[in-house]
Amino acid sequence: MSIPGTPLLSTLDTLFNPTSVAIVGASEDRDRLSGRPQRYLMEAGFKGVIYPVNPNRSTVQGLPACRRVAQLPATPDLALIVVPVASARQAVIDCANRGIRSIYLLTGGFAESGEEGRALQGEIGEIARAHGIRLLGPNCLGAFNAHSRFFGAFGTSLERGFPAAGPVAIASQSGAYGQHLAYLLHRRGVGMSYFMSTGNELDVELSECIEWLAVQPQVGVILAYAEGVRDGARLARALEAARLVRKPVVFYKVGASVAGSQAAASHTAAMAGTDEIYDGVFRQFGVHRARSIEEQLDIAYACARSRPLRGGRLGIVSVSGGGGVQMADSAEAHGLLVPALSPPVQAELRAIIPMGSHANPVDTTGQVVNKPQLLAETLQVVADAGECDALAVFLGTVPLTSAGDAPLREAIRQGTERFRTDGAVAVSMVADEPSIRAAEAQGCLVYEDPARAVRALGALNGFARAFAAERSPSAAMPIPTGVGDRALSEVEAKALLRSAGLTTLPEVLARSADEAVRAASEFAAPVAMKVVSPQILHKTEIGGVLLGVSGDSAVRDGYMTLNARAARAHPDLELDGILVSPMAPRGVEVILGAVYDPTFGPVVMLGFGGVTAELFRDTAFRAAPLDEAEALRMIEETHVWRMLQGWRGAPPGDVPALVRAVCAVSRLALGLGEALESIDINPLLVLEEAKGAVALDALVHLAAGLPVSFSPVMGGDFNPSSVWEGRAEQAKLRVG
Amino acid sequence: MSIPGTPLLSTLDTLFNPTSVAIVGASEDRDRLSGRPQRYLMEAGFKGVIYPVNPNRSTVQGLPACRRVAQLPATPDLALIVVPVASARQAVIDCANRGIRSIYLLTGGFAESGEEGRALQGEIGEIARAHGIRLLGPNCLGAFNAHSRFFGAFGTSLERGFPAAGPVAIASQSGAYGQHLAYLLHRRGVGMSYFMSTGNELDVELSECIEWLAVQPQVGVILAYAEGVRDGARLARALEAARLVRKPVVFYKVGASVAGSQAAASHTAAMAGTDEIYDGVFRQFGVHRARSIEEQLDIAYACARSRPLRGGRLGIVSVSGGGGVQMADSAEAHGLLVPALSPPVQAELRAIIPMGSHANPVDTTGQVVNKPQLLAETLQVVADAGECDALAVFLGTVPLTSAGDAPLREAIRQGTERFRTDGAVAVSMVADEPSIRAAEAQGCLVYEDPARAVRALGALNGFARAFAAERSPSAAMPIPTGVGDRALSEVEAKALLRSAGLTTLPEVLARSADEAVRAASEFAAPVAMKVVSPQILHKTEIGGVLLGVSGDSAVRDGYMTLNARAARAHPDLELDGILVSPMAPRGVEVILGAVYDPTFGPVVMLGFGGVTAELFRDTAFRAAPLDEAEALRMIEETHVWRMLQGWRGAPPGDVPALVRAVCAVSRLALGLGEALESIDINPLLVLEEAKGAVALDALVHLAAGLPVSFSPVMGGDFNPSSVWEGRAEQAKLRVG
Repeated sequence: MSIPGTPLLSTLDTLFNPTSVAIVGASEDRDRLSGRPQRYLMEAGFKGVIYPVNPNRSTVQGLPACRRVAQLPATPDLALIVVPVASARQAVIDCANRGIRSIYLLTGGFAESGEEGRALQGEIGEIARAHGIRLLGPNCLGAFNAHSRFFGAFGTSLERGFPAAGPVAIASQSGAYGQHLAYLLHRRGVGMSYFMSTGNELDVELSECIEWLAVQPQVGVILAYAEGVRDGARLARALEAARLVRKPVVFYKVGASVAGSQAAASHTAAMAGTDEIYDGVFRQFGVHRARSIEEQLDIAYACARSRPLRGGRLGIVSVSGGGGVQMADSAEAHGLLVPALSPPVQAELRAIIPMGSHANPVDTTGQVVNKPQLLAETLQVVADAGECDALAVFLGTVPLTSAGDAPLREAIRQGTERFRTDGAVAVSMVADEPSIRAAEAQGCLVYEDPARAVRALGALNGFARAFAAERSPSAAMPIPTGVGDRALSEVEAKALLRSAGLTTLPEVLARSADEAVRAASEFAAPVAMKVVSPQILHKTEIGGVLLGVSGDSAVRDGYMTLNARAARAHPDLELDGILVSPMAPRGVEVILGAVYDPTFGPVVMLGFGGVTAELFRDTAFRAAPLDEAEALRMIEETHVWRMLQGWRGAPPGDVPALVRAVCAVSRLALGLGEALESIDINPLLVLEEAKGAVALDALVHLAAGLPVSFSPVMGGDFNPSSVWEGRAEQAKLRVG
Repeated sequence: MSIPGTPLLSTLDTLFNPTSVAIVGASEDRDRLSGRPQRYLMEAGFKGVIYPVNPNRSTVQGLPACRRVAQLPATPDLALIVVPVASARQAVIDCANRGIRSIYLLTGGFAESGEEGRALQGEIGEIARAHGIRLLGPNCLGAFNAHSRFFGAFGTSLERGFPAAGPVAIASQSGAYGQHLAYLLHRRGVGMSYFMSTGNELDVELSECIEWLAVQPQVGVILAYAEGVRDGARLARALEAARLVRKPVVFYKVGASVAGSQAAASHTAAMAGTDEIYDGVFRQFGVHRARSIEEQLDIAYACARSRPLRGGRLGIVSVSGGGGVQMADSAEAHGLLVPALSPPVQAELRAIIPMGSHANPVDTTGQVVNKPQLLAETLQVVADAGECDALAVFLGTVPLTSAGDAPLREAIRQGTERFRTDGAVAVSMVADEPSIRAAEAQGCLVYEDPARAVRALGALNGFARAFAAERSPSAAMPIPTGVGDRALSEVEAKALLRSAGLTTLPEVLARSADEAVRAASEFAAPVAMKVVSPQILHKTEIGGVLLGVSGDSAVRDGYMTLNARAARAHPDLELDGILVSPMAPRGVEVILGAVYDPTFGPVVMLGFGGVTAELFRDTAFRAAPLDEAEALRMIEETHVWRMLQGWRGAPPGDVPALVRAVCAVSRLALGLGEALESIDINPLLVLEEAKGAVALDALVHLAAGLPVSFSPVMGGDFNPSSVWEGRAEQAKLRVG
């Protein structure tokens, strides 16, 4: 539970970079959880002052100790509380009274363990808030900073040595996960900056940590782990802060599966947004979503040692044909292109390695084992041709041969010397640890598995693209809010959409058969007729739609038929009338909508039309607001994109119109804010290029109603005759 | 290129299990490629006789050598030829003349290097065939058998020690890949049986190796690597042979991407089938398709140490909440269920670990570090409840703590003792090598990454399901073949489909407006009208279909309209007539078809109807023949399955009728054989349960025409009135 109300006064600076630390409940036993933080601080060489507090001892682990917090000789920046849960409340009060304004509450047994713990946690939250205390935890493993040698944590990973200083920061809701990751980074030789485990997030939440890490000069890449965040807008702000300063965020968000999300919910009290929405938000802010520890680690490693790519063209040089093919397969799966090298470059390569392959992947064949210089020359030609933005080199097990890897490594160094100034080089090889470290020292990323090497390069490309995006998110549409709780009728919903800038067909709400006939004759063509009633939300289910109705008597019949069907379905019906409109022209049907997500607030959704979006989950989500570039990326994520390119001989669709429609819904959703429950435009018909996009049907649910005024006869702003050719014939063709 | 004509006489037994080996071109230099096979054979302790052949030496590496093959004191089982390419042809002739019937041609510079090499390879093939020689290669790394210590190979991986004897066999087109994999297995402590690299596959192909390996008692799991096979039917036979003896095949087929497949094609001369068809065939025969070396290795490791699962229910026990959630997420991605444990089991767990989570994933919390017995008890309850078929245990970095991993390992051993007799246990932990080996020794699979652990269990479940399938593939439909080359008209195509057992609507080919009117009145309802002409294959493109035509004058108009449109599109038209049929009832539209694939022969395809199948690639492929169970699995692989369950309130569809239709197309495709070019039933309409499936339109292309006789007026065998309700209204609703 986050603490509502005024923002807490202190920043996170003191919390994560204290110069003096009291350890409340410090134990003499260096192996107990309550003894380890002091041991780590001392072993790691923390330069600040350490004040152990222990009611029964005058020294702890060789340092002078106070019996009570009140007796501390000075007010420390931070208190680490490691007392049992029963004493935790008093310890926090003691700290508050002593003027301490930063606390890590490492103790467990709070909200994660049931109602009683939840209540206790709430009380502590009140105390912290009243005293302006920033509090990490409870039920967390603490935090550390490998640069300052401040290790205010207990984690098994530190038992195997302290991490070297470096650019990688970890912010994890799960302490166990975070330390696991920290250890694997350590083992892989990747240096760290900050580690922070947020536990139950009584006060400090993951999002705030990410936002704070984004502006720390020692941080180059942020690894985040969450089972769900409470405040999606805060997360979005944090991710955007990182994006703006070009710091990659690699996020492992678990709970994607049903069993997983149940477990996540039972593990924390987080109210998780749906997984698809997380996916959309991660894409929106250029976050790489990892699906395993290994993936998060691989990409952290790449980010720590290499820059985002300048483009997505991958050159592949392999000492065996198979290695090259494997890498090419992986490249496609991770969004990289493997362009054929130009004929002159291929000719140069042919002169160096006549027996090899020269297009890309380039296969030097195994002869480089005997003549490493061939590899140097090959790489130089590929690297300096300017046709690739990253290089992937496959050496396989060749480094294990008696010839060794040193000559090959030297060849790679030579061959990529100029390229490495702004290009990334990933080497896939099976080699001994010293060889790997030597290759890294000369500027290469080293992965054993070729698919993992390419995946990391793909991530570097993804970051580059996300960092390059300039944003101009649309403002919220100003909407006067009122009170209420209802679904708008189709007529009202369309009026609202039009006020947001969307286009609809002209339509007339007929209240008699005569009015319907008059309207139809005005439209001078076959018409669509639909029942309109607040009680009938899904018209097709009761047969409440007639399409292609032509001629006065048919329109009159239609009017009667629809009234009869509506009455049969809902005997106590309030029928607003029958909506008459021209038949829609041809186009690509999409679903465009918005929902108010409990985590992320107003969220926009775009998907393939018909049953397909739902069945195939072919949808893209984004948190509002978004701009046109982001709307375009949403479209590109779905198969709608290919349909709009002119699928199977159909004319290309009006992509800019769809982009504008997405932005309009975003503005509307943002303007509605908490009053929004859901908007469903199904279908939105995207017409041919330059002809627009038309909302054919719309359903709007409001949590709180709006005083929107509706005219009884709604004039749509779209003139279908401009795109109408052979409509009558079409209607006939499509009968049945 | 494979050698056409009569099968070669010798089996692969001698080729891969020789008792005496001549090395033609053996070098005194033990590190040269031509020196290494002899060194390996000697170092590994090969028990057979080794005959070095070297024109310039009387001893090679300490063994007496012959100057010429002709001088060999006895005829060896096998000759390893390691001479330069220029001498290769003569060496093969020498071996043939000496009576040698098994050869590894390790030399490169043949088909892979251009036209000249291709010709030379062809000549050698002729020589081998003429003498009944089985030949591995050329351009390969040879083969070995770790059980018999026969190492007829040169591979850098052997430089790091010989693999221990064990169940894993490798059959790889790429020698570099195969040895890479062999080394990684060796490093992971997984024992091997056979290794074989097939290179240019002049004679022995990968499929034959797989088939042979399937029946070798020393082989428990087969790892295959290919860039494409030439004879798909042969591959299918080999995979089925492995499936029948319950030996898992883990196949890494590369070339899925465009760049990858181009590289693959330039690396070997293989004519690769499309990747989707490989996918379908792998599923058909229960093969696990790996997408990286790492995946292939992980699953080989699991297969070498564990049995296929008895079911797909996964129990997860974790020492941290995060680990459990990660594993649950992975389980869903790999086809495993994570069922909630029953209330009594949860109650038992609550008694042991009150603070943990008890549903599944089970979270013991970190207290097991101090009390490992809790882990033993937890595991015992979960394992022995009989509610799971596999267990995944997450220990994270806990084994690195000072308490060590031994107590936890002992707890796992105790807790899973009964379970392990027929259940698999995978442990995810970060631990030192000796700890990992110790955990393996007590029967656990050990993976560092939790996602990889679960993926491997998912694969074990996949094998179990595939092995359990009983096959009764349908026979080919007997079809008299003729000569020709043409597309059948819709009328002819439907007649052919009916003869194969598919259902069509009744229809009349009208040759005059009067005939059309008469036909329509017979069907007593709105009708569909379509042009029929061999020149018009895609009727809708020229407006050649009218639906829902009702009333004599409309039918007459329709007849005229269609004739006019056809004439406009093709001025020199041969119009067979206008096909008149009742309107189709409602149903789920699917695409069902078959093609003749150059690799796999007749292949059946099923997909979602409309544009969706192609756009989303929502299709399933299988090589014909297939049986009903396999047809059902095809349906389940696509979203058609969910549609047929009654998507969004629609009535469930007639799955058995679709299964029969798939089998009918399979029989027909198989019967047509090479005469088949393609069959497209688009759409096949699957009706409500027990009401059948109807081919509404069909396109059949034959490579060689068939003397099928067609009656001028085709009577369909499906009576739509049985499912027809409110057709007129429907037609009206669907106009436009």
